[in-house]
Amino acid sequence: MSQHENHHATSVIAVDWGTSSLRGARLDAQGRALEERAFARGIMTVPPSEFASVFEALFGDWMSTEGTLCLISGMAGSRQGWVEAPYCACPAGFDELAGQLAWLPQGALNPKGHRIAIVPGMSSEEAGVPDVMRGEEVQIFGAMQLSGWQNGLFVLPGTHSKWAVVQDGRITSFKSFMTGEVFAALSQHTILAKTIATDAPFDEAAFARGVANAQGPAGLLHHAFSARTLSLFGRMQAGPLASYLSGLVIGEELRAQTIGPVAEVVLVGSPGLNQRYSLALHELGLRCQTFGSEATWRGLAALAAKVNA
Amino acid sequence: MSQHENHHATSVIAVDWGTSSLRGARLDAQGRALEERAFARGIMTVPPSEFASVFEALFGDWMSTEGTLCLISGMAGSRQGWVEAPYCACPAGFDELAGQLAWLPQGALNPKGHRIAIVPGMSSEEAGVPDVMRGEEVQIFGAMQLSGWQNGLFVLPGTHSKWAVVQDGRITSFKSFMTGEVFAALSQHTILAKTIATDAPFDEAAFARGVANAQGPAGLLHHAFSARTLSLFGRMQAGPLASYLSGLVIGEELRAQTIGPVAEVVLVGSPGLNQRYSLALHELGLRCQTFGSEATWRGLAALAAKVNA
Repeated sequence: MSQHENHHATSVIAVDWGTSSLRGARLDAQGRALEERAFARGIMTVPPSEFASVFEALFGDWMSTEGTLCLISGMAGSRQGWVEAPYCACPAGFDELAGQLAWLPQGALNPKGHRIAIVPGMSSEEAGVPDVMRGEEVQIFGAMQLSGWQNGLFVLPGTHSKWAVVQDGRITSFKSFMTGEVFAALSQHTILAKTIATDAPFDEAAFARGVANAQGPAGLLHHAFSARTLSLFGRMQAGPLASYLSGLVIGEELRAQTIGPVAEVVLVGSPGLNQRYSLALHELGLRCQTFGSEATWRGLAALAAKVNA
Repeated sequence: MSQHENHHATSVIAVDWGTSSLRGARLDAQGRALEERAFARGIMTVPPSEFASVFEALFGDWMSTEGTLCLISGMAGSRQGWVEAPYCACPAGFDELAGQLAWLPQGALNPKGHRIAIVPGMSSEEAGVPDVMRGEEVQIFGAMQLSGWQNGLFVLPGTHSKWAVVQDGRITSFKSFMTGEVFAALSQHTILAKTIATDAPFDEAAFARGVANAQGPAGLLHHAFSARTLSLFGRMQAGPLASYLSGLVIGEELRAQTIGPVAEVVLVGSPGLNQRYSLALHELGLRCQTFGSEATWRGLAALAAKVNA
């Protein structure tokens, strides 16, 4: 047990440090955010030697109280992050995650000797192919607490969406889907870029049509081309086309998830993605409970409580 | 009937003018290429007013014999091409295609009054969603003649692959798959770009593994992520990864084609794509006959013979 773990903190700082964004919160005793900060300082923008100084500039004031504990989830624990926190293998529960925190030793990585630990990501393996997540595992454990679900399917939409199976409070397996990134690549770097207005307002009817069309058996490579031909034949304008393509890609994710039949899932994402996935799930006859950043804070707060116990 | 059609040409020039490339051939009486030329002058590189001058610079010498007929297939007949040749709707046979040639009138579009016609593309519609091809229809009719098949499944791999059903010598329906373009977008414009050596030599074993993995039910959005994780876990190097991803995307195309069970298909593509698709088809227990540019020349020659008859 690290010397850090014997420390009884009164203050907890939660940070979600992802590839392209960075969010932090000061938490109350119930794991709710008293104050939040967000920056466009994802790990892609931070050179390896500058994590400590970037952290200090953005959150140093929050760490000034003696004994303050900071837990960081997300890509900050990847090989390109602050310090590598090796993946925790599925099936795994909250205790395994808490037991594999990567503490930042005082020194070059942590000049001020702050009490900071990075939460490991998780890995899952199927048929010889590994899968990984970093940050979503904390959201899932937080969402378990918020929803009261100890069993079920947890869906985390994003650049690389995650579908995780939870049994008896443990994450038993999960799958990634490159949904957000494929949508961006299709809409910006293929022939579809010519006719799609990616900044158009969301069009619910066009989105729903995309979700429905994606359920056909011919797959995304075929269906994506319909965003080209509907435009070519003047049957859909550039604005709705963006929502239609979004529906096709999210619809493909829903079509292809192989967890099995469920009636309801827990959805944890940004407000915009939660809206789209709720609509898509509803379109396919599924219900969902939705959570946002509070799941991250709640998950990190629970880990902090365990460390401080 | 155009005055052009009464002309009895002795010479036939066949041109396949696509989005990114331009190929032409002088044909003999049997529709074989006596001489071929290829240029990186796809229609994307040609401003609307310059088609005639580009054509003249590249093929003018071939047109100098009185009565020479030139037939052009491909994107030159699109709205962004030389002159628009409206789509011929499925089901359609060789006669419908020949009957809808778009002749270039003498004038600004055709200052020298050459005897040039553009072959229409074809359209297919399913469940309210149109599909289109330009150029591939000529390859299919050419491959019908070369293979002797009047019934069967014709596969044309490429940027936007086509799978066409032929019955009694007519194309009854077809589907497009954005395979080539999605492979390029995934390998260049997503996180996979970091760890894939797109210029690596072809690795047959990695390709076959990709084809096999793509047959799983979780779909391309999931399987593509395995190209990330196999690299992350040091289980596949950057060179083989390019072939693996190619196998995943081509394997998804094969998985998702919904034409029904067949034992053998006709494959018409470039040597490199024919190699990959032959391997992938074989991997899934299908046989194929393969043809290359000779299918284009043979198809255009057959149309020319009809015009000159």
